[in-house]
Amino acid sequence: MASGSSPAETVDVRWHAHAVTRADRERAAGHKGCVLWFTGLSGCGKSTLANAVDQRLNARGLRSFVLDGDNVRLGLNAAPALLAARHGDAFAKRFGLGFSAEDREENIRRIGAVAELFAQAGIIALTAFISPYRRDRDAVRAMLPAGDFVEVFVKAPLEVCEGRDPKGLYKKARAGEIKGFTGIDDPYEEPLSPEIIVDSSARPPDELAAEVIAWLERAGKIAAR
Amino acid sequence: MASGSSPAETVDVRWHAHAVTRADRERAAGHKGCVLWFTGLSGCGKSTLANAVDQRLNARGLRSFVLDGDNVRLGLNAAPALLAARHGDAFAKRFGLGFSAEDREENIRRIGAVAELFAQAGIIALTAFISPYRRDRDAVRAMLPAGDFVEVFVKAPLEVCEGRDPKGLYKKARAGEIKGFTGIDDPYEEPLSPEIIVDSSARPPDELAAEVIAWLERAGKIAAR
Repeated sequence: MASGSSPAETVDVRWHAHAVTRADRERAAGHKGCVLWFTGLSGCGKSTLANAVDQRLNARGLRSFVLDGDNVRLGLNAAPALLAARHGDAFAKRFGLGFSAEDREENIRRIGAVAELFAQAGIIALTAFISPYRRDRDAVRAMLPAGDFVEVFVKAPLEVCEGRDPKGLYKKARAGEIKGFTGIDDPYEEPLSPEIIVDSSARPPDELAAEVIAWLERAGKIAAR
Repeated sequence: MASGSSPAETVDVRWHAHAVTRADRERAAGHKGCVLWFTGLSGCGKSTLANAVDQRLNARGLRSFVLDGDNVRLGLNAAPALLAARHGDAFAKRFGLGFSAEDREENIRRIGAVAELFAQAGIIALTAFISPYRRDRDAVRAMLPAGDFVEVFVKAPLEVCEGRDPKGLYKKARAGEIKGFTGIDDPYEEPLSPEIIVDSSARPPDELAAEVIAWLERAGKIAAR
């Protein structure tokens, strides 16, 4: 289209620069993008449930992705020690994330921002992090467009979570080997009005996943079947 | 499946915790995930080209997404001033990103990590950032699994980019109103062996987009048609 004797002056990079919109991406996907934010105590089953929902969505051919500690703490929100080798100590000290209240706040903020990018891409992002502080979760909710943030409270009594202790973390926290552990010597602030509450001490993950899927259908995020 | 008289003790959250794998997601998408990393001077046409490629992929029903300054600098990599209102000054000072060499390094690192999450999700992530330093781009390449990082050098002479000056930034840099501007008083380090080189001073974006699509087909990232 654009052409002329002097390419350097006549080729216009702004030509035909229409971007694909979120609505275009959602039309192609056949469903809405959103963020399913799973929150709850360590061992409550957040990650298991997020993965079970993800499996069901994938089986329907829908676009989804799980953000959890496994894929976030190695890259985007790496600890200082992980960053130091490639970027140096000063850099690692400034940008690496530990477990102070401020670092947790930034951890959750970045995850919220990335999950929203997935939502913009027409994808159902599932995040599985303890995210114990109400203020941090509410900050993500406030940062996202209305309707994108779907808070899923995975409820289970502390005794049940501690009884499971899949990573042996409660035992270490009780022994004083881990400080500031949620539920032991740091608070878990329950959501006041989450979109979804599931009780993981009463029913298996597959039934809870079906509840979440049913919510997505009722909310018009995905087609009912 | 899991059931018993005492739910709190018998419901096992680890039951059936198979996650959807990257291969599963790519099978559902019908193509490979990867990161198309567009790099070049301000005004070279990175963003226009990334969007043109994105349009073509979307038109084929493939899964893609553009990461650029518009959606990254407002959220994930927000400037201190943007973070201060919600998170306070000390937090904003530590985690907000400016334009120092260190901040640019972290900006690129986070973008690389997020683009890789998209690739893991079976999506073709297109990033459009000047990313002037070879070391920073190479760090992203090294962080990603082999084959995921596809460097696209959008080549155009400085005079051409400065002549376009779509945002009036070169004018400000020449007037000394912007310091450390790439190409003026800060270097742009050309890629030494990018996967793709396109000359945006010679041909319009649509033709360049076709070249990138052809590369993706040849590399087996997407099906040829």
